[in-house]
Amino acid sequence: MRALVFSEQGLEIERAYPMPIPGDGEALIRVVQAGICNTDLEITRGYKGFHGVLGHEFVGIVEEIGGAVDRKEHATMLGKRVVGEINIPCRQIECAYCRHEVYSHCPRRTALGIIGHDGIFAEYATLPLANLHLVPDEVSDDEAVFVEPLAANFEMLEQMHILPSERVLVLGDGKMGQLAARVLVLSGCEVLMVGKHTEKLALVAGSGVKTLALEDAEQLVQQGERSAYVVECTGSARGLEMALRLVRPRGTIMLKSTVAEPGTLDFSTIVVNEIRVQGSRCGPFEPALRALRQKRIDVSSLISARYTLDEAVAAFQFAVQRGNLKVLLTMEA
Amino acid sequence: MRALVFSEQGLEIERAYPMPIPGDGEALIRVVQAGICNTDLEITRGYKGFHGVLGHEFVGIVEEIGGAVDRKEHATMLGKRVVGEINIPCRQIECAYCRHEVYSHCPRRTALGIIGHDGIFAEYATLPLANLHLVPDEVSDDEAVFVEPLAANFEMLEQMHILPSERVLVLGDGKMGQLAARVLVLSGCEVLMVGKHTEKLALVAGSGVKTLALEDAEQLVQQGERSAYVVECTGSARGLEMALRLVRPRGTIMLKSTVAEPGTLDFSTIVVNEIRVQGSRCGPFEPALRALRQKRIDVSSLISARYTLDEAVAAFQFAVQRGNLKVLLTMEA
Ligand SMILES: [Zn+2]
Ligand SMILES: [Zn+2]
Repeated sequence: MRALVFSEQGLEIERAYPMPIPGDGEALIRVVQAGICNTDLEITRGYKGFHGVLGHEFVGIVEEIGGAVDRKEHATMLGKRVVGEINIPCRQIECAYCRHEVYSHCPRRTALGIIGHDGIFAEYATLPLANLHLVPDEVSDDEAVFVEPLAANFEMLEQMHILPSERVLVLGDGKMGQLAARVLVLSGCEVLMVGKHTEKLALVAGSGVKTLALEDAEQLVQQGERSAYVVECTGSARGLEMALRLVRPRGTIMLKSTVAEPGTLDFSTIVVNEIRVQGSRCGPFEPALRALRQKRIDVSSLISARYTLDEAVAAFQFAVQRGNLKVLLTMEA
Repeated sequence: MRALVFSEQGLEIERAYPMPIPGDGEALIRVVQAGICNTDLEITRGYKGFHGVLGHEFVGIVEEIGGAVDRKEHATMLGKRVVGEINIPCRQIECAYCRHEVYSHCPRRTALGIIGHDGIFAEYATLPLANLHLVPDEVSDDEAVFVEPLAANFEMLEQMHILPSERVLVLGDGKMGQLAARVLVLSGCEVLMVGKHTEKLALVAGSGVKTLALEDAEQLVQQGERSAYVVECTGSARGLEMALRLVRPRGTIMLKSTVAEPGTLDFSTIVVNEIRVQGSRCGPFEPALRALRQKRIDVSSLISARYTLDEAVAAFQFAVQRGNLKVLLTMEA
């Protein structure tokens, strides 16, 4: 099959990559459409040291289910359109994380296209059936590709009680910030997106999100208008410094971006102002699917370009350019 | 009066420092005994740029109450032994922090011996009556001096729900770590103190706190024995790095030490492991007084030395030496 492979030779399309074989309880998925994520870009810069087929944001069709026994999942899953959670945990009873269903933190987990498991920038991929979620008819292929990153933003609402009477400041107008703002505005809060790019800030206007140019953010600090919550979505180590200025005492900074290089931080401000810095990664798929089905979140305006799998290397080159948002890959020949 | 003053000339005893005059609703306090805190030491290195009388941990006697009107506080406070909260808020209705009684974060606050208000390494000091707490007879002067730093450790229990079934790792065996371990063990958790000094680790044995030498802490990581909570009490910018290795996924790091210099941090570990980094500063006095009155916390073993006010410069020199814990100052002539 064809697949986009990252190796020591860099990124290239292999035309005769071995077909994956689904193990017992795993699905063989024909990938329909996929999205390029910042994590994919970070991996091509060395993050996690991953080599293999990249990609983890996708929608596909279950073509086959592994294992000798005929399962009830044959009826509910076979031939269906699905999205998939990316963490593949050990599911052993000795594992405290798996026992408590905290699968995304299983220390022996692999992760689709990130750790020890080939990803989905390919014609076919495998995932355990337990990772899959059916996509309702009301959710288009374009929308379905956004389920995984949307779920990662719903994770913030799982981790903490966000008071609807407060303001959330989203720092960064890129892919992550755009989705964070769209999810957080559902909680009833005033959401303010701060970013550098007028045209990107304009994209959230229809979602009820207020916007502010980065150069005007300092005025908020001067006016004592600091926010109870700041979501750091700049993808830069400098972002946290800025977030510390914009958050008010006893407020929370949500850290969403995995940045490869370490950063410097004034810890005494965290102590004196009793700030909570909360890391946040993967999240629940069902709320994301529900919000899309109910048409509460618009993602179509975030699609910057579409490429075929054969054009995937060019797609990556386009995705790394500043100013571009979500780049989709279509797998058809 | 005599007072220990920090100025551009450094630290010195002034013998004719002006007596403080209590304003309306303020108490004039004759200081009986005081404790030297790491924050005092940090101030002599430039932290907060404070000049004036140092010191904020004390027990004293209310000698006079300012203001023309005879107050009911005359009866309940005058002549009584008190300890005092260090933050002096604006108490204006326009101030959102004061309106919500979050006095320790009032942006216009002064702080005893730290920001814009003379401290208590002196014969006399003033504080608003609202800051004072009566000391029960069962609490000795030695114990009363520990109320302020103990309250700062009860702040952790105010900020988050610490599950008694989990382990708290206290990183650091100095003054802060010693008090943190003694407070946290009351929550029913297994508390493990990790430090460099055998003789300091030995001090918590009687409090039901387990101990581990720092060089053996890496074994915890290797054995997958990471903790749900890690309290960073090393007072060094490197401490947070170590804490990040010792905390388990979805765990919390409590930051207690105000360190003047900024530190470097691997933010991606915070994101991937969904760690909460929680700054923590001043806390509630009543739980600290209650625990001392009920003899649930031993602080006497933490007193390394006693000096008189006249010997205060020597006392500071002693306090900065590694291995020394709480140094007390007695104000009598
Ligand atoms: Zn597991
Ligand atoms: Zn105030």
